[in-house]
Amino acid sequence: MHMGVLGTGTVGSAIATRLIALGHDVMMGSRTAGNPKAAAWVAGTGGRGHAGTFAETAAFAAVVFNCTRGVSSLDALGAAGEKNLEGKIVVDVANVLPPSDRGGESLGEQIQKAFPLAKVVKTLNTVNCEVMTHPARLPAPHTVFLSGNDDGAKSTVRGLLESFGWTDVLDLGDISTARAAEGYMPLWLAAWKALGTLSFNIKVVR
Amino acid sequence: MHMGVLGTGTVGSAIATRLIALGHDVMMGSRTAGNPKAAAWVAGTGGRGHAGTFAETAAFAAVVFNCTRGVSSLDALGAAGEKNLEGKIVVDVANVLPPSDRGGESLGEQIQKAFPLAKVVKTLNTVNCEVMTHPARLPAPHTVFLSGNDDGAKSTVRGLLESFGWTDVLDLGDISTARAAEGYMPLWLAAWKALGTLSFNIKVVR
Repeated sequence: MHMGVLGTGTVGSAIATRLIALGHDVMMGSRTAGNPKAAAWVAGTGGRGHAGTFAETAAFAAVVFNCTRGVSSLDALGAAGEKNLEGKIVVDVANVLPPSDRGGESLGEQIQKAFPLAKVVKTLNTVNCEVMTHPARLPAPHTVFLSGNDDGAKSTVRGLLESFGWTDVLDLGDISTARAAEGYMPLWLAAWKALGTLSFNIKVVR
Repeated sequence: MHMGVLGTGTVGSAIATRLIALGHDVMMGSRTAGNPKAAAWVAGTGGRGHAGTFAETAAFAAVVFNCTRGVSSLDALGAAGEKNLEGKIVVDVANVLPPSDRGGESLGEQIQKAFPLAKVVKTLNTVNCEVMTHPARLPAPHTVFLSGNDDGAKSTVRGLLESFGWTDVLDLGDISTARAAEGYMPLWLAAWKALGTLSFNIKVVR
């Protein structure tokens, strides 16, 4: 599948690399053409990956992963272009850090509102990027959440997550439930500090 | 041990009954003497439990469980009396529902600040009262969190939790981490809605 990954940081790189390994055709997008991190990532794939601007990446992809920092995600998606995101699945894995005490809408909801013709699915924001892409590295099964308004888009994303190795994907409901998944961030930060490792996640035991 | 339970609702009743079953000497506290729910609870214990005002309960107990509604907890503890809470362990299991979007301090922090000579331990607020008191009812181990400034108090509370059946007690740190445990509430509410049961909890897999 044609996959776009917006963001050249550790999260974008981890997801783009995992998608390449799973046989997808992947473009990594950045604000400007010729981004050195994106070029290094393309080189690391032996030329199987591509690089482009945010707009080129969104135009190329059927599924667009938002791996930009939460505070600049709306700007990045704006640069990607509303027209290029029309009908596309936007997988939003970002968090606003530090978690905002102002409350109100989640980033996932804000993205859906700003790009009403995109199909936004919030997921994977509750774990570190290595757990995101290789969930089997933890010693027991654990849970990832889905939030989004479009059932077909959630079904596609669920399939992608399962291809990453996820075995427990819990659909929380429409995009308003992204507030729940993003609101978990303070507990994730506290658990990271208490455990001294990023290699953890929660399992919903029921 | 002399145990005080502030609150006559389902949470207070569940915890008080569990403490009786474990052999503790338990007083259930309410705002006014002669509370009919407290009287019914005492009758249900075959007279082994006691009932009193918030102040009588705090004076009686070595460990005081705050099982009042989060929105009225500071009032209830005020009625219990600062003097009666001096040096006591206050186990705060309450949540402010619906979760406040105003952010800021957690209830646990607010209680510690209002009663600086009490030893506040935030715990158990992340699960339904039946899971609180009988964690073994879930099909696999799962996690409960501790937040508090006093290590001795946390050690006592950990022992109590283990006597309830808890096997994974994760100390998040000082009382400021109550913000993390309370901030989990929106995810708990969304998971409840998605699962259609209150009989669940999260396990921190690491």
